[in-house]
Amino acid sequence: MGGYRVAILTVSDKGSRGEREDLSGLAVEEAVRGMGWRVEARDIVPDELGDIEAKLRHYCDELGVDLVLTTGGTGLSPRDLTPEATRRVIHREAPGFVEAMRAASLRVTPHAMLSRAASGIRGCTLVVNLPGSPRGARENLEVILPALPHGLEKLRGDGGECATT
Amino acid sequence: MGGYRVAILTVSDKGSRGEREDLSGLAVEEAVRGMGWRVEARDIVPDELGDIEAKLRHYCDELGVDLVLTTGGTGLSPRDLTPEATRRVIHREAPGFVEAMRAASLRVTPHAMLSRAASGIRGCTLVVNLPGSPRGARENLEVILPALPHGLEKLRGDGGECATT
Amino acid sequence: MGGYRVAILTVSDKGSRGEREDLSGLAVEEAVRGMGWRVEARDIVPDELGDIEAKLRHYCDELGVDLVLTTGGTGLSPRDLTPEATRRVIHREAPGFVEAMRAASLRVTPHAMLSRAASGIRGCTLVVNLPGSPRGARENLEVILPALPHGLEKLRGDGGECATT
Repeated sequence: MGGYRVAILTVSDKGSRGEREDLSGLAVEEAVRGMGWRVEARDIVPDELGDIEAKLRHYCDELGVDLVLTTGGTGLSPRDLTPEATRRVIHREAPGFVEAMRAASLRVTPHAMLSRAASGIRGCTLVVNLPGSPRGARENLEVILPALPHGLEKLRGDGGECATT
Repeated sequence: MGGYRVAILTVSDKGSRGEREDLSGLAVEEAVRGMGWRVEARDIVPDELGDIEAKLRHYCDELGVDLVLTTGGTGLSPRDLTPEATRRVIHREAPGFVEAMRAASLRVTPHAMLSRAASGIRGCTLVVNLPGSPRGARENLEVILPALPHGLEKLRGDGGECATT
Repeated sequence: MGGYRVAILTVSDKGSRGEREDLSGLAVEEAVRGMGWRVEARDIVPDELGDIEAKLRHYCDELGVDLVLTTGGTGLSPRDLTPEATRRVIHREAPGFVEAMRAASLRVTPHAMLSRAASGIRGCTLVVNLPGSPRGARENLEVILPALPHGLEKLRGDGGECATT
């Protein structure tokens, strides 16, 4: 139940132009390393559906990571499209993660209900959207971390194409 | 962050035939005015998919309101089709609003889980389904009101086609 | 508000091969009988999309039961496909049931967020996915039981094709 391989995608117009430091991606990376998991990739893309989707497909289909965590692009702004890109690539919805994150955040602030974050499975990879702020990303990730080891272990399955030796 | 323009749609067979006073639409209108927002339209349609959908499109595409609130048609009855009409018109899902309303109502009554209400964004407009009873509509609206000003402000964006001068 | 007709479907590779006793289906059956409702069918199928879907269609379209309860196949394992089969057959989503079950289970264990259970309506039948373990199935069913009589009554409607005499 260890050694999971993770990809982290920051979705931010400003970040992708180098106008803003990627503190959210960094916060997610630190939390992931704190679990003893390996960060295989960490990228920044603008809030463009095609760019987000291409990265998600790359992480799932070519890198074959166990987990993709995105940060940013989950709000109501016209260019917030991370959930739409996520829904385009996932084969099986896994709504429990985003429901749990929104419910936990809602106990802190009513603004939590503005999150449109999605989560689901593509092949052997779980994809979960986190909020765009460093604090929001970290706090939401902490909500799902206790369930991830068991979840990722199940996702690998016993035998079959997702199993590792 | 004020001056939002709102349309209210009551979905009710009896209401559309004039057999029942539209107390739910009235309750929603009062709450909206209490926020200092402007009610641009308020209509009643029967529980017909096409009628509901046409009104939603009109509010979003022609009136260009910031927010559409519906009341009625969200339960399990065979003619409850408001969520289906809503899903037909929205471009981006925003499940946090209806999750928060159901969670809050669930603390009052287990019947809250019977609500099939949906919420999402079409262009520059947020659409949220409220329950059909005056009390249910008012109480559910109160759950999301604290998050709406910030949400609608984000939806307008900075510049771009949804911005106002 | 009584006399509802129910079908129970256990989704399990091992169960379908007779390698495991169907304690979950039995637990669901006992709870249903405890409500004074009638169990019209109880079957076991492997975790195959087509097999699950065929049974769900049979229960809804041929048996015309009021309620279908499934147990199993809702997790992250590669062969967990019950929610996908359910989404294929339902006409109207009813997310309040599974949201309420996950929220209640989340108060007991963070693993509750791993449930991908779906719920919705096909014609005159409500379909709800329950977890695969006997205890999980029973506890989740207990969460929604208080709302089911009113919900199933509404689903039958007044007159119309779902009404009973």
